[in-house]
Amino acid sequence: MELVTADDVRAAAARIQGHVVRTPLTAGPPGGGFLLKPESLQPTGAFKIRGATNAVALLDPAQRLAGVVTHSSGNHGQALAHAAARQGAPCTVVVPEGAPGVKVDRIRALGARVVMASPERRAAVARELAENEGLALIPPFDDPHVIAGQGTVGLEILEQSPEAATIVVPVGGGGLASGVATAAWTVHPRRVRVIGVEPELAADAAESLRSGHLVTWPPELTHRTMADGVRVCLSERTFAHLDARLDGIVTVTEDEIARAVATLAHGARLVAEPSGALAAAALLAGRIDTDPERPGTTVAVVSGGNADPGLFARLVAGEG
Amino acid sequence: MELVTADDVRAAAARIQGHVVRTPLTAGPPGGGFLLKPESLQPTGAFKIRGATNAVALLDPAQRLAGVVTHSSGNHGQALAHAAARQGAPCTVVVPEGAPGVKVDRIRALGARVVMASPERRAAVARELAENEGLALIPPFDDPHVIAGQGTVGLEILEQSPEAATIVVPVGGGGLASGVATAAWTVHPRRVRVIGVEPELAADAAESLRSGHLVTWPPELTHRTMADGVRVCLSERTFAHLDARLDGIVTVTEDEIARAVATLAHGARLVAEPSGALAAAALLAGRIDTDPERPGTTVAVVSGGNADPGLFARLVAGEG
Repeated sequence: MELVTADDVRAAAARIQGHVVRTPLTAGPPGGGFLLKPESLQPTGAFKIRGATNAVALLDPAQRLAGVVTHSSGNHGQALAHAAARQGAPCTVVVPEGAPGVKVDRIRALGARVVMASPERRAAVARELAENEGLALIPPFDDPHVIAGQGTVGLEILEQSPEAATIVVPVGGGGLASGVATAAWTVHPRRVRVIGVEPELAADAAESLRSGHLVTWPPELTHRTMADGVRVCLSERTFAHLDARLDGIVTVTEDEIARAVATLAHGARLVAEPSGALAAAALLAGRIDTDPERPGTTVAVVSGGNADPGLFARLVAGEG
Repeated sequence: MELVTADDVRAAAARIQGHVVRTPLTAGPPGGGFLLKPESLQPTGAFKIRGATNAVALLDPAQRLAGVVTHSSGNHGQALAHAAARQGAPCTVVVPEGAPGVKVDRIRALGARVVMASPERRAAVARELAENEGLALIPPFDDPHVIAGQGTVGLEILEQSPEAATIVVPVGGGGLASGVATAAWTVHPRRVRVIGVEPELAADAAESLRSGHLVTWPPELTHRTMADGVRVCLSERTFAHLDARLDGIVTVTEDEIARAVATLAHGARLVAEPSGALAAAALLAGRIDTDPERPGTTVAVVSGGNADPGLFARLVAGEG
């Protein structure tokens, strides 16, 4: 399989400039010894806007006019709705029946059409809409343009902190980790390592990388974690990127995730959703050793901030 | 009195570059119709780092070697400790007996010496230390170098959003409002208006500006607001700046402040302390009319994020 290159990531960076926020590097919690890249401050609250914007920008004008479709009701659905609206493309989001009303309202407020489907029919409905209405299907991570867009997070970190030695990212479908590992690996091979983080309860990527082939976990297992943004599994494409370029992967417990959400709020003034707090959780829990051969700055990506309000309130009150 | 100029602010911007975060403009809460400038993401969690860094940088080398002193145990004390440490200056912070241990610990962790004094003797003790030990006294707002440093917030907003028409800032001692109004007034006179916001329960600046002379409120009145960062009153210097350059001032209730802290967390993924949420509170409560003669972008400065953890947890749970 052909992998995304650093040139693809650089081209994506030029393409999405002005459409996304160049998030700064900010201080991590006191004593933590790492910096943060708060992608939670992007429009729609997650890094997903980068990949979605790049993918929409790469459509030919006729296709952009016809529109795009996806079946993620989470951060990618909102990001695609936002990116499409900014670039004048109609957007349809297939949402599973029973999805929280607040999520559906947000997607509608961004100007997208919402189509309901049963959870098991979601992907099929999106494919049918793509075929019948001539829409471009933009998946949340299994797409080279999306991966290249997410990789701009890594490119910015390398520009903002030339001393960066370790970049820590959450792993769900693997789009962000694939992109960032591509940026670091091809721009500074062997100087910057990229470490992925998964919940112990959804550690399909760790198992895949250990065993050398793609392993998927059933939803009834991955849905045990509160980190709802990373309950999905890798695709063959993201597995191939991570297998070739990721320097390591670690897991964290639910308690460690809960504590990291509270610590990021009280110690770094950031609202992170549980998935968004994974990288910080791994560092705060001491799961990532410093590499004596690569001294330098460690950066944790805070990938998203769309925490459920009730859950967030309980976590910052220390009520795990 | 000689007022700070836009050139002073521009010089400060060059001086503090690399020492402070160039915070981005980020999306405000959905439907709010305004952008945010999250100064809560600065080192030590507030805009104060800008003024402190500028003031320390302007000391002559011998004075920098001798050290600096202040008597703020809040955001300015932490900011000065951080700015002094970065520039190799010893720092002393006079802290009132009975101050929260966590604040004292933070100041010490930043490498500063902590000297305890009774609340009413704080200022005098700081002056004595300045005199006896040859330290430079760097006050939290009543200082032209500090005002020029805080003004860089305004300069950045004008650079980042050339369409900015209204900038909204909290008013406590008035250093931030003086600096931002100076930047807006001298860079784009009549095109960009700057509106200050105070708690109704600590509205000394509003009363001062209405009556045309400096009015101070006693601590027993200003300490009724939960916005502890703005319980101080203007000085003659900041009054003169605001009287000449601020376009208006409004007040908000405690309920409006509490709701704004929750809305910034859930809707904009930012942890703001009550004082830091004042500008957003005024906009969310509809206290600031849009000016039909100046259409364009509205930006609210989120000035600080050092919320008490217990209070923050209650506010995001909607428990006012």
